[in-house]
This record gives sequence, structure tokens and C-alpha cells, in this order.
Amino acid sequence: MPRVLLTAGPTREYLDAVRYLSNRSSGRMGVALARAFAAQGATVTLVAGPCEVALPRGGEAGIAEVVEVVSAAEMYDAVASRFAACDIFVAAAAVADYKPAERLEGKRKKEAAGGNHWTLELVPTADILLEMGKRKGPRQTVVGFALEAHDALANANAKRERKRCDLIVLNSPANFGDAADTLTLLDDTGKVRRQINEPSKESAAAALVEEILSHRHAT
Amino acid sequence: MPRVLLTAGPTREYLDAVRYLSNRSSGRMGVALARAFAAQGATVTLVAGPCEVALPRGGEAGIAEVVEVVSAAEMYDAVASRFAACDIFVAAAAVADYKPAERLEGKRKKEAAGGNHWTLELVPTADILLEMGKRKGPRQTVVGFALEAHDALANANAKRERKRCDLIVLNSPANFGDAADTLTLLDDTGKVRRQINEPSKESAAAALVEEILSHRHAT
Repeated sequence: MPRVLLTAGPTREYLDAVRYLSNRSSGRMGVALARAFAAQGATVTLVAGPCEVALPRGGEAGIAEVVEVVSAAEMYDAVASRFAACDIFVAAAAVADYKPAERLEGKRKKEAAGGNHWTLELVPTADILLEMGKRKGPRQTVVGFALEAHDALANANAKRERKRCDLIVLNSPANFGDAADTLTLLDDTGKVRRQINEPSKESAAAALVEEILSHRHAT
Repeated sequence: MPRVLLTAGPTREYLDAVRYLSNRSSGRMGVALARAFAAQGATVTLVAGPCEVALPRGGEAGIAEVVEVVSAAEMYDAVASRFAACDIFVAAAAVADYKPAERLEGKRKKEAAGGNHWTLELVPTADILLEMGKRKGPRQTVVGFALEAHDALANANAKRERKRCDLIVLNSPANFGDAADTLTLLDDTGKVRRQINEPSKESAAAALVEEILSHRHAT
């Protein structure tokens, strides 16, 4: 049975003790994927940012470990140290791709800028999917997610190639806050492997897991 | 019985369709205050940003209305249109004091900056507490919160004066993520009215409500 390493939820990049930059993500899809893999007999390690939904616990059936992280850097470290031991890596987290160039001590006073403009310098975070794609061994499967608002198929395929994913799941901002889920799974030739239109994130996750496991069996 | 207008939780200031700036706040104190006021017979209108804790429902005992908002601007509008009808306004929300100067359509591509630096221009949001302090009538009580990391008492008192609060609650970043709560309530002369050290946010909220109502009776 495959060992699955899975990320879920957003990350938070703190500007100071109080303010942070984050991404819109409840973690619901990632947690649903963890449970769906477990239900198929896989052994799941879940690395989760601050999710709105309840996380499974390490030790539950099929859930080997749950690692809670806050920032993209923490998520990177948690994934990198576990990647070699997994058969399937699914990057479902909405990782912040930018963080403040510096994190201030304490809480920045509004008066520090005279109550006026604040110019915030952001720098890229470490790219978890890109790095794991580079490290990928011949028996490992890497699955990415692409959230694309424009030129969706072309951008998702470009991301799949750049990050060396075996499969990529195209998601849309239109799914935000919606119970239903519309996803497009692209295979390693860039073709649509399956169009998923499901009434819930849980049933969409079950369909994705079925495809990921069958792709793995076929290769 | 007093009519209480209360804000809770953080706000989110979106940079684009996905990324946002926010403050660390679960909303737990604000929701506990709403329930504590209701338990004392007040009629509560709650204006809440995206909270981690479950919100009460409008129509529950003592809860007249619950207005869910996302941004500081939405919270400002929801409060401003209801302020004249309240006896007590408690600003417990961790409102973002800065927002992006512009909100981009769709999702900004990382490649838009060559994957390099991103300079983000932030501008101040409308100051809800300052504006309601200006509008305050002779029979209205306004209670603010101050989260201060340095020179806490002096900064909290300066905020109380600037924003014309009758009472201000001094909070500390040390309370984050902690079940227990240590708060200092300052009165309109700048003196410590009550030091609150409670094992939970709920019992701290009950103590605060008791003090707010007794301050109101005494004036």
C-alpha cells in the first residue's frame, strides 16, 4: 500500500507579531484527500497549515502522522525531511509564494509611517513542489495543484512541466466557498485525464484519489 | 436593557482573488463578549470578520443580529449604519489597519515579477473606532481594545484619548493561542479599573462585561 505525503491548507507569512499574509484556503480539499487515501488503504502523512476544517489525528486509521505548520518555510522543512520516504506526494496546500522580506519584532505601530502609506517588500518563498519535483525518484509520483484564473489549461500544463509533476489538478477561484467542486486532472502528456464535477469537495477528493492510484498502477 | 453593538474577529484585505493580508485573531474573545452581554440581558448586534470560532445566530437569546463581513471597509459600513441605535459599542475586532492600495483582478502570476521581489503598496483603512468615538452621543459608551507589545499602558491610554473611548482594554500578544487571558481595563481617567487574569477567554469576557455595565450604571 502506498505511503502518501500530502500538504493541506494555507500558510501564514507574518509581517510582525500580529499581521500576516495568507491565501484563501479552508484546507477542506487537503483533509478530504487525506481521508480518501486512508480509505483506499494508503498510509498518509499530512502536513497542514492553519486550516478552517478539523484535522485528522495521527494514529487514526490510515493517518500515520499529522504535522501542523504555519509558514511556507516550516512546510518546506516538514515536507523535505519526509519526501524520500513517500511513494506519492500530493501538494494540495495553498502555499504563500511571497513573504515579507523581514519580520518585525513586536507589533509595528501605525504611527511608524505617520498613519500613511506603508511600502512592504515581499520576496519569494522556497518552492516546495518545484524542489520535490527535482528530487523525485523513478518510483515516486508527484501531484500538483494549479489555481488559475486565466488561460487555465495552458498555465496548468506549463506548471506541470516546470515542476515535473506526474499529474496536475487544475482548480479555479470559482470553487472558493462553494460546496461543489469542479476540477480538471491533467496527465503527464498534458491531456485531460478526467474532468471532475462533484457536489462536494469530499466526493471530488475520492475521484481524484481513484485517478492518482490508477495512474500509479498503470506506470 | 442596553443595546450593544460589538465587533469580533479579524478582517481580510485582499491583494487579488487569492492573497490577503490579515491579523492574528480567532474571534473567540468577541464571540465570548457577545454571549456574556446576552447572558446579562443586553440585546447584541454582532459584526464579525472571518472567525475561527462558531458564531452565534441572529435570533438566539439576546442576539438580535449577526452581520458577517470580510474587509475593514465592510466592517466600517456595517458598524456605521448601526452605531446611532446602540447604547454600548465594543470594538473587539482585530481590524486590519492597512490594505493594499489596489486589488488586482484574478490571481497575480508569480512570474509577473520574474519570480523576484514584489513591492506592495499599503494604505490605511478607515478607522472604525476613531470615527465612532467622534460620533459618540452623551448616552453612548464606547469601549476599545488596544494590543500593545511595548510601553503598553502609555500606548493604550494614548489610544483611549485619541479615539475618545470611555474604557479601553489592554491586550497583549502573549495571550495569542493561550486559553488563559490577561487583560487590563483602563477607565476614562487613564487609571487601571480592573486587572483581569482568568483561566479562559470566556471568563475574562464575563468579567469585562460586568465592568462595562457597572461603569455605565455609575455614569
